[in-house]
Amino acid sequence: MDPYARLSLNTATTKRLTLAEAVQATQRHGLSHIGLWRDRVAEVGLTQAAELIRESGLTVTSLCRGGFLTAADPDGQQAALADNRAAIIEAETLGTRELIMVVGGLPDGDKDLVAARERVADRIAELAPFAADHGVRLVLEPLHPMYTADRAVISTLGQALDLAAPHPPSTVAVVIGTFHVWWDPDLADQVARAGREGRIASYQVCDFNLPIAADPLLSRGMMGDGVIDFPSIGRYVAAAGYTGPVEVEIFNAEIWASDADEVLPTMKQRWLDLVWPSLAGVS
Amino acid sequence: MDPYARLSLNTATTKRLTLAEAVQATQRHGLSHIGLWRDRVAEVGLTQAAELIRESGLTVTSLCRGGFLTAADPDGQQAALADNRAAIIEAETLGTRELIMVVGGLPDGDKDLVAARERVADRIAELAPFAADHGVRLVLEPLHPMYTADRAVISTLGQALDLAAPHPPSTVAVVIGTFHVWWDPDLADQVARAGREGRIASYQVCDFNLPIAADPLLSRGMMGDGVIDFPSIGRYVAAAGYTGPVEVEIFNAEIWASDADEVLPTMKQRWLDLVWPSLAGVS
Repeated sequence: MDPYARLSLNTATTKRLTLAEAVQATQRHGLSHIGLWRDRVAEVGLTQAAELIRESGLTVTSLCRGGFLTAADPDGQQAALADNRAAIIEAETLGTRELIMVVGGLPDGDKDLVAARERVADRIAELAPFAADHGVRLVLEPLHPMYTADRAVISTLGQALDLAAPHPPSTVAVVIGTFHVWWDPDLADQVARAGREGRIASYQVCDFNLPIAADPLLSRGMMGDGVIDFPSIGRYVAAAGYTGPVEVEIFNAEIWASDADEVLPTMKQRWLDLVWPSLAGVS
Repeated sequence: MDPYARLSLNTATTKRLTLAEAVQATQRHGLSHIGLWRDRVAEVGLTQAAELIRESGLTVTSLCRGGFLTAADPDGQQAALADNRAAIIEAETLGTRELIMVVGGLPDGDKDLVAARERVADRIAELAPFAADHGVRLVLEPLHPMYTADRAVISTLGQALDLAAPHPPSTVAVVIGTFHVWWDPDLADQVARAGREGRIASYQVCDFNLPIAADPLLSRGMMGDGVIDFPSIGRYVAAAGYTGPVEVEIFNAEIWASDADEVLPTMKQRWLDLVWPSLAGVS
């Protein structure tokens, strides 16, 4: 068994690389999966990006990201729907089923969190048929509660599953990102529920570094550098029946400034030490 | 009805003031309640602090704080129990029933969050009889999940209530602090539950400012300066039957640098505009 068979490089980890460079780095370090961000795809254009991926033989494990669905005004809502339909087409064209959804925070000056969350449910319902027609599923991402106001009003895995519940698991699912959910007292139960409901579309790993970075978005770390108990969470995910690819997605200024040929070997070693054993049931 | 009758100044808001100065400021601005931090009490000594408070006629709405119960080693655990027994005596001496408990984060280098949470339950069970003997209750404070690793492994109101459940509500209760819980998708239900279970010992208000401050501890703001929907949360708390005092507790470098005679009038105005109406059922 190749211990790296499930490891996927998310291009956010190697932020400075172009799509072609990220693909080459992934291959050079012996990996077979890659998770893509839309900005790097847009740079080369969708058709060429899809061709580049096809030729590489890599599997695209997800496209990041759709979402930003919380606008309260009709124009903002129509713009969000249009952008998400474009993202669905992009995911289909790139050959991945999983479109990661960061659903957006509160609109400027708006403090009604309950209403913002209801709008997310409404927009998901509007997008779901289009996604299904294109063989793509909307993968709801709960974000750490420090981002509730400005990035994602979905704050827990349980809430993401509640929002997914009205839809078939083949159309609306969830991603379990360690950075975002590690603190949740209800995590073990909700991961088990996500597995029972067939809604684990992706497992993304990175660490939660302390002290929190001056830009809190960049407080993610290489596995092992922060406070997260990867073996325990890996056991929950394995017990929930998830056997798919696992993306490493790290927003971190120091890692972004480093050479990818240093970052990827470290990533593989940490994966081997901390992530893979419990996922594979060998620890 | 005096709209300020329930408003309490927590001395963390006027951090630079001595206990005597904070008492005077509270009186000068027409308030009848004060929430105390142990450091300012220790400065003057417990006996003199208690006398100062008695002479002022102010009500002490809580003592901040006990806790830090997550040590894994026997010496650390004994030290925590001793410190908390001292805090219980201090609360009793100062004439308040409510001892706020910030339960502590992960011990250095320890990533086992589940075990740390179990140790909190164990220490609470050991302290509860002593607290009850002294007419003090242990008031568990869920902290925002950005502090789970380094300050408090209690991260949601629901979790705090689960930890309190084995004990009578007169001995173990919870504090609802807006900064810490505003993002929680389960907030309305858990506040209602806290009311049903008779466990709301305190309601503390301050805002959640964005961007998050470079020192995340200081990202709290004056009500109205951040993203929190005080009217909605106030309605939950009122509907849960809480009629007690409400502390304003703000950790914020700018407010700390300001004159208390500017801060307190602003605090009273924001209270009147944003907090009191929904609590009093007049909005």
